[in-house]
Amino acid sequence: MSAPDPTVAFRRARREDVPAIVALLADDTIAVQRDAELAEHAPGDAISDYVRAFEAIDLDPRNFLLVAEQHGTIVGTLQLTYIPSLSRRGSERAQVEAVRVHRDLRGRGLGKRMMEWAIDRARERGCRLVQLTTDKRRTDAHRFYAGLGFESSHEGMKLKL
Amino acid sequence: MSAPDPTVAFRRARREDVPAIVALLADDTIAVQRDAELAEHAPGDAISDYVRAFEAIDLDPRNFLLVAEQHGTIVGTLQLTYIPSLSRRGSERAQVEAVRVHRDLRGRGLGKRMMEWAIDRARERGCRLVQLTTDKRRTDAHRFYAGLGFESSHEGMKLKL
Repeated sequence: MSAPDPTVAFRRARREDVPAIVALLADDTIAVQRDAELAEHAPGDAISDYVRAFEAIDLDPRNFLLVAEQHGTIVGTLQLTYIPSLSRRGSERAQVEAVRVHRDLRGRGLGKRMMEWAIDRARERGCRLVQLTTDKRRTDAHRFYAGLGFESSHEGMKLKL
Repeated sequence: MSAPDPTVAFRRARREDVPAIVALLADDTIAVQRDAELAEHAPGDAISDYVRAFEAIDLDPRNFLLVAEQHGTIVGTLQLTYIPSLSRRGSERAQVEAVRVHRDLRGRGLGKRMMEWAIDRARERGCRLVQLTTDKRRTDAHRFYAGLGFESSHEGMKLKL
């Protein structure tokens, strides 16, 4: 794996990034059935729903939406949520959701750099645990997270409403 | 399974419930190694950490700490966190953590009632997904959540800091 690409910068997401982030989230073999039509075909109502959701994330001191930007293009994103807890002596747990790297940049270490960034933020904040769930079909993702030190100790269970 | 026990009432946790909740969280074969000593032997510093954590949960509009109370005793607890998201058309996801039922009341439907309460709150709020992780060793818990409609579709990965 090569050294971190200095042309890729990390920053907090801004409102104008929302369409690019939604497109990244939808450009995924598993999520595509779920969100792609919305992202491509419903720029009106759907985009205002997404902007409202962005504002909720952006205003929440326990949520942080990261983007990786290269030459003005959003090439990666993840969301960090700090969950206050009465476990582990009342420490927050850091949860990572919605990790995506642009398909043109996969396999070049950007996802690793993003996750290391997230783990560093969690550690700085005093979290004792970082957690995420990943679809059982994404075996390459399991290896990726295991390489970062994550253990597959839990079942991730979901109920759609 | 018998009808819901009318002597068990659900309510939002209060500060004075913290020691009982921490004791419930610690009274568990898996968590016991982690938290029991703190709960039993460190009423000073540890309790103030827990009270601070309780206040963080209680003041956060996206967190809700439930207790089940029977004749003045805390017999169950769970925490709900609403995570704003750019997935699923910008809907929140509801996450359930720290589900515990007092050992004297297990197997009588209280956990089911608590989880149904949580699912109802998530639905009312417009969440499209309820999620949780459960230790792979808790096979009885997997059956319990499957019975409520949850699917084991994901790996739950954890990194201790």
